[in-house]
Formats: sequence, C-alpha cells, structure tokens
Amino acid sequence: MATTNSSDVTRPEPQALKSAIEALAARFGNRLVTSQAVREQHAHTTTWLPTQPPDAVVMAQETPDIQDVVRICAKHRVPVIAFGTGTSLEGQVNAPAGGVCIDLRDMNKVLAVHAEDLDCVIQPGVTRKALNEHLRDQGLFFPIDPGADASLGGMTSTRASGTNAVRYGTMRENVLALKVVRGDGEIITTGTRAKKSAAGYDLTHLFIGAEGTLGIISELTIRLRGIPETIAAAACSFETVRGACQATIMAIQTGIPVARIELLNAAQVKACNSYSKLSLPETPLLLLEFHGSEVEVAEQSKNFRDIAAECGGGEFTWTTKPEDRTRLWQARHDAYWSVKALRPGAGVVATDVCVPISRLADCVTETEDDLARLDLLSPIVGHVGDGNFHCSLVCDIDNKDEMARGEEFMHRLVERAQSMGGTCTGEHGIGQGKQKYLKAELGPEALDAMRALKRALDPQNIFNPGKIVPAA
Amino acid sequence: MATTNSSDVTRPEPQALKSAIEALAARFGNRLVTSQAVREQHAHTTTWLPTQPPDAVVMAQETPDIQDVVRICAKHRVPVIAFGTGTSLEGQVNAPAGGVCIDLRDMNKVLAVHAEDLDCVIQPGVTRKALNEHLRDQGLFFPIDPGADASLGGMTSTRASGTNAVRYGTMRENVLALKVVRGDGEIITTGTRAKKSAAGYDLTHLFIGAEGTLGIISELTIRLRGIPETIAAAACSFETVRGACQATIMAIQTGIPVARIELLNAAQVKACNSYSKLSLPETPLLLLEFHGSEVEVAEQSKNFRDIAAECGGGEFTWTTKPEDRTRLWQARHDAYWSVKALRPGAGVVATDVCVPISRLADCVTETEDDLARLDLLSPIVGHVGDGNFHCSLVCDIDNKDEMARGEEFMHRLVERAQSMGGTCTGEHGIGQGKQKYLKAELGPEALDAMRALKRALDPQNIFNPGKIVPAA
Repeated sequence: MATTNSSDVTRPEPQALKSAIEALAARFGNRLVTSQAVREQHAHTTTWLPTQPPDAVVMAQETPDIQDVVRICAKHRVPVIAFGTGTSLEGQVNAPAGGVCIDLRDMNKVLAVHAEDLDCVIQPGVTRKALNEHLRDQGLFFPIDPGADASLGGMTSTRASGTNAVRYGTMRENVLALKVVRGDGEIITTGTRAKKSAAGYDLTHLFIGAEGTLGIISELTIRLRGIPETIAAAACSFETVRGACQATIMAIQTGIPVARIELLNAAQVKACNSYSKLSLPETPLLLLEFHGSEVEVAEQSKNFRDIAAECGGGEFTWTTKPEDRTRLWQARHDAYWSVKALRPGAGVVATDVCVPISRLADCVTETEDDLARLDLLSPIVGHVGDGNFHCSLVCDIDNKDEMARGEEFMHRLVERAQSMGGTCTGEHGIGQGKQKYLKAELGPEALDAMRALKRALDPQNIFNPGKIVPAA
Repeated sequence: MATTNSSDVTRPEPQALKSAIEALAARFGNRLVTSQAVREQHAHTTTWLPTQPPDAVVMAQETPDIQDVVRICAKHRVPVIAFGTGTSLEGQVNAPAGGVCIDLRDMNKVLAVHAEDLDCVIQPGVTRKALNEHLRDQGLFFPIDPGADASLGGMTSTRASGTNAVRYGTMRENVLALKVVRGDGEIITTGTRAKKSAAGYDLTHLFIGAEGTLGIISELTIRLRGIPETIAAAACSFETVRGACQATIMAIQTGIPVARIELLNAAQVKACNSYSKLSLPETPLLLLEFHGSEVEVAEQSKNFRDIAAECGGGEFTWTTKPEDRTRLWQARHDAYWSVKALRPGAGVVATDVCVPISRLADCVTETEDDLARLDLLSPIVGHVGDGNFHCSLVCDIDNKDEMARGEEFMHRLVERAQSMGGTCTGEHGIGQGKQKYLKAELGPEALDAMRALKRALDPQNIFNPGKIVPAA
C-alpha cells in the first residue's frame, strides 16, 4: 500500500551523482552531509509513506549556496529537494529518485520589517514562531498558523493555512513576492512590495503551492497584521455536527469576522477528555476566537451566542483573559497528543479534505458513518469556517487488514469530498500521497496544463521530481 | 509616441484568414460580423493607444461557440481576442495582428448562486452591476468595483480591483475557479468550489490577469459577501497629501476594516467643485466607507475621526443615510466627468501605479511637482488604502508638444513608483501600453518565465498576441 506514484522519476547515473557530490563537497566542505542518519531525517514524513532519503544534504546559509547547489545538480542532472522543517504530510520531502536535499533552516534571517506597510522580507528558513517572536515588540504578527512550527518557505511551498485562515486567508493571500532560484541558478523575482499589481502573469501564485517542483524559494516578502487589541476565546457544544456546521454557516454569512472556528467531533472531544482530564460533554464542540477592539469582540461574541442558541448549541462560554483562553482551548491544543494516546505505539495518519461549507455537515457525518462501518478509529478536527477538516486515523502499521481498511477509508473520504464539489486537500498538499486524486478533481486538461508548466520552468525535471503531477 | 511594443506579432497569411472567416461564417451565420464600425468598436480602447481593429467579430452565446471559434482560428493560425465590455485601459482588446474577436456580452447568465457557500457560478459576460442586481434579493453582493460596469470575465483577465479592494481584495482574492478554453478547444478546469485548496499548481491565478493571452475564460466561480447591515460614508479634508496618507496608514495599521478610502488631491477637488457645484475646501480630501453592524460602523468611524484629528484633518463628516452618503461621495462619483469638463474636446488619459503605502505621500507629492514642472493638468484620485493611485492626464491629442510632455510624465511616474518598491500598474494591467516597463520592474528572469508560460500554454501564439509579454 501507500504507493508513491513516482513512476516518472529515474535515479541519476551513478557517475553523474558521484561527480555532483564531489563538486558539492569541494564547494561546501562539511556543510555537505552524507551520513545515513541525516539523510533519513531529511526524508522523514509524518505520514505512512515510506521514507526515501536523498543521497546528500547541503546546509545552505545564503542565497549563493542555493544557486551553487542548483547549478551543480543541473549540470549533472541530479534532483534537488528543498527542506524546511520536515513537517509536511504527503511525502513532499521524500527523494524517490535520490538527489541532493538543500536544508534551509540556517537561512533564518528576517531581512527587513516594514511596519507602516505591514510587510516583511525574510529568508525561507524563518519559522512562523521565530517570526512572531521577532515581530511582537512592534505590535505585529503573521497570522497563518498550521499548527507545526513550520518554515515560511515550506508553508509557502505547500500553500499552508490552518486555524486562522477563515479570517486572514492562507499563504495564497499572504505572500506578496518571492525570489526563486531557477534551473540555471539565476533568480526570478516574482513581484514587488506593492499590495496589489496587475503587471503580467502571476508568478508569485505559481510558486506558492508548487512544493519546490518549479524552483527553490530563496526570499519571501509576506504580509503582516497588527496584533489585535483584544482576543476573545469561546466554546460551545452542540448535539449534532449539523447544528455546529449550521452555526458556522450563519456566522460566516452574517459577516462575523471570526478569527478561528474549530470543530471537534464527539470522538475527538472524548479523546481530549481522557488525555487532558477535561469534563466536556462528549458531543460536537465548536471553539472560537474573536479579534478586534473590546467593543467589536464583545459584539462578535454576543452575535455568535445568539446564532449558536438558534442552532441548538448548549452553554456558550467566552473569555478575554489569556489564561482562561488557554484553558478553554485546551482540548484543541492537545488534540494531536490525545489521539496519539488513544492507542500507544500505533501510528496516526493525518489526512485532510475541504468542501463547500454547505456540504460540510453531510461530509463529516458520512465520514463518521464510514469509520464506524469500517471499524476504524479517527477523531475529526475541522477548520470549519473554510469547510476544511482533518481525520487523524489511528492505525497499527503492522496490521495489514487494518491498513487496508484505512486506505479504503481515505480513498472514500477524498471521493466523498470531490463529489460534493470539494478538493482532495485543503492544506496538506499533493506531494506523493495525493497525486492519484488530481485527475478526478480537475480533469485531464488541468493535468496537461500542470505538466506543461513543469516542463516550461523545469525542463530538466531536477526540482523535487515525482511530486504533485503524476506521470502521464 | 504611444508605441505598442507589438514587434512579435505578425498578421496571418491572407489565405489562412480568408479560410478561417469562411469557416466561421458557415458556423455562425450573422453572428459573424465584419463591418468596419463593429470591428473598430471592438478595438476601442479608452486610452491614447491607436485603435487596431480585428478582422471579424463573433457574437458568442454559449461555451461551444468559444470552443469552435478557437478551433477554427487555431487550425488557420489566426489570433483570437476575447472581448467583454471594452473598458480596459491599456489596449488589451486591440488586434495588432488582426484576427477574430469573440464578443462575450451575450454569455451573461448567472448559472448558480450558492448563498450558504457565498459563491456563484457565472458566464464571463455577466457585468458586475447585473450580477449585483441579480444577487440583491438574497442579501448578497460581489464586492469588486472598478468603476466601469465591466464584465466579470474581463475583470478577471485584467486582475481588476477598485475602491473596495482595501477591504475585500481584488479579483485575485475573489475568483475561486475558472473554466478556460485552451488552444485545441478543450476546456481546462482550474479549481473547485472549496474555499481553499492545496491541490497542485495554482492554475486559477495563472489565468487571473493573463489578459486572454493563455486561453479564453468560459465560466467563473466567484466569491460573494453578505450585504452589510449598515454602511456609513465619511469625508475629511487635510491640509496636505502627507496628512491624508498618514491617517490612511494609521487606519490600516490599527486594523480599522475600512471598506473604501479614497484620496482626491487638491486639483481633483477643485475640478469637482467646479463641475458638481460643490464648495469643498480645495485641499486633499479623503472619502471613506465603513461596512458592518450599526455598532461596528459607529466605532470604526469614531476611531478614524480620532486618527484624522491627530494627522491634521479638518472637519469629519459622516452619515449612514443612503441619500446623504451619495451626496458626501458626490465628488468621487463625478471625478471622471469633472476631469473631462476641465478642457472640453481634449482627451483624458488614465494611468495608474501602486506603491507601498509608506511611500504613497512621497509618490503623490513628487508626481504633483512633476506635473507643475511639465505644465500638465492631471487631477489625482487614489485607492490609498492599497497605495494605488490614478492620474487623469488632460491632453490635446493633436498637440505634439503637450503629448510629448505627457509621455515623459507617464514614464517618470512609472519609474518613480518602481524606484519606491512599487509596480507600474496596480489595476489597469499591462496590455500594450505598459510592456516596456515590465523588465525594469521584475527583471529579465521573470520575463523569461512569462515567455516560457506563454509558449507552454499557447504554443501557436493565437491568444491575444502582442499583449503583456514584450518580444524577446
């Protein structure tokens, strides 16, 4: 199982690989690493896809390092794979054809903060937590929060989003411009610091979500926001998933600018009660966050409370005190660990889909029914304001029968989402794991177009081969 | 002057053109039009670029019409130019190599409205006013307002924006998915109705702003919003452009979700006073609109009033009554006509640039100085929340000396914006008029990438040739 759809990748000739690694060693000295442990660590994927390590890892420190790695690899036709923090979920950093991994974690400088313009210029290895730490004194923050402390280069490359996206958008809405190292080592500049532009093809968005298959991002200009004056957290239980989804739809439709709105299904609440010693009603739970002035946040909360009551919500709790907010959101913060604790030693496979919000209740409910039918354990957490939800499938990787049912479940989940007008992934990306679903979602013509773009910008197929676009 | 940079376009062979038009006549009957008046009307550009009419116009009614036009034109290697309402400003609908114009105005059906999902599916010829008329009963609206009653297909293709963009984004943020007829007449589907997706290359954004050079948009899925409960309009005069810009920066930075914030410079206010019989102080004026609940709108207005006072603003007027709002915004609504009236018979050339907001005051002030130095008349209106502003240059097209100064002015305007980290166009697009500025803005590598994309998706160069990407 867990095929990687990498039939269009071929390993470089051994002599070519040897020559490339010699050239890299001469250029980078001990910043070129070929030990097995380090190579495996750089292909580690938080999924059930098998690890496919690169042949070597280069620790990049500055843009010329990336340029030289790409030039050397291009000369010898050796694959180049960009690596941020390794928190992608669909095999994005695997090296099915071997090649050279560029580790960008040391390219972690914030190059400029333009507070008046609400933007900053950073290197790709800056993580979101490090950036927000850097920005805090200036009253600014970067709103995209995928959970993991991922690098901004990686978040851009996978078009990441997360809990805040319902208000602030995803990486798609928050990257202004990129510098990208192309196949000959030269640098493409995709845009300016202007908030908007109608100047030519949108190269910025072409590289956002390209998973490093069209070039290596060496610099980013991203949008920032002012830290809100007041943050309120709220929680409300519902008898059914449908009630929680209906409340979400009404909140969005009436324009409440909710900053986060997360659904935990009954199974997830139960797992959290057990792990975090909480006593929440074991029914679907919505957790919310509101950002704004004191007056705005109070009004948003009041409006949502009315909507929740109308949709069969139970007690509505809310607070603006930081320590109480943390307590109220405890279940969400511990969600991952609570799932891990359900069956110690078993694996947890995270997968995501996204549907039009009107179909969300149907999609979650049918998914719960399917889990029961297949006798599988998978709590569900959703960024429901966007129609996006995750299943955390608890699976014993050595149990063939369970894994087969798990694979059937994931196939059916994607088909269900697509049949409802949705997508096979809202935020985890295609990588290797979801290539097989692209054609059903967009049709063969879209795949033709993607293949044509790949050939146009990476004619040698050296950038992260075997990802996104399945072999023709 | 007004060169069109179309050196890479060649007219089709006369025999090929004749064969194509015969085939189109057989297929479309009297929906194929070749009269000079209709052809010229379809190349009419609201700019000083010379009109370059197509050889024929086809009135499309359904998607298969577009497919057949493209197939016939591709077979004979004849250019195809999509036409919405002809309100583009940089020669986007000119036909420098002749060819066939597809007029999409009869493809004006709203195919589906999904109120719960806040999206709708439309044909490309639907105009924004017709769409908003259609949506009103459901309490929904489409927020992008470029001024003209443009078609949504055209607005997508030029990545249009306008006064509401500061709150709701541009077409870039409001198109979910497209169907696009490619060179062999088949249809590319670029996305789903899911609010967000990480599924492969972002084909949607590649076609947004491509000005019809990569294919013809045959269907759009776009985002809608709920009509706000309350709309407030406000006005405030400032002694200097700098004061008005500083107030704008502070409003954005403190997170006031202003829906529109428009600057009229002193010359524009003077023109409006004269044309609309107003008695506004002839100094820079900010006009604002706030959307939200009654409480929110009141608080936003109050917060902005405090900021304006801090930045040297004069009397702050605001209202939520529809008739008073219209009166307060009178100057803005009449801006175009007030400029036309400044010198009856003369032309008005509209041009736009966009800079990081911190540089806006510098850019507008230096531009005003340049106008004085060159003895030119050009009121300025700005979507200042985005750092975007327009010059409406009043020019006698038969006066060679004045036109030469006008051209010098526009060159210097673009260079100024680019030197401040901005773009040569925030919302009008590249078309023919601004091709010469792309290289200075993004560098030769970005142009290489754009050329590669054009070749990849339109290898025959039949889609709107001679636009966006200058000849190599």
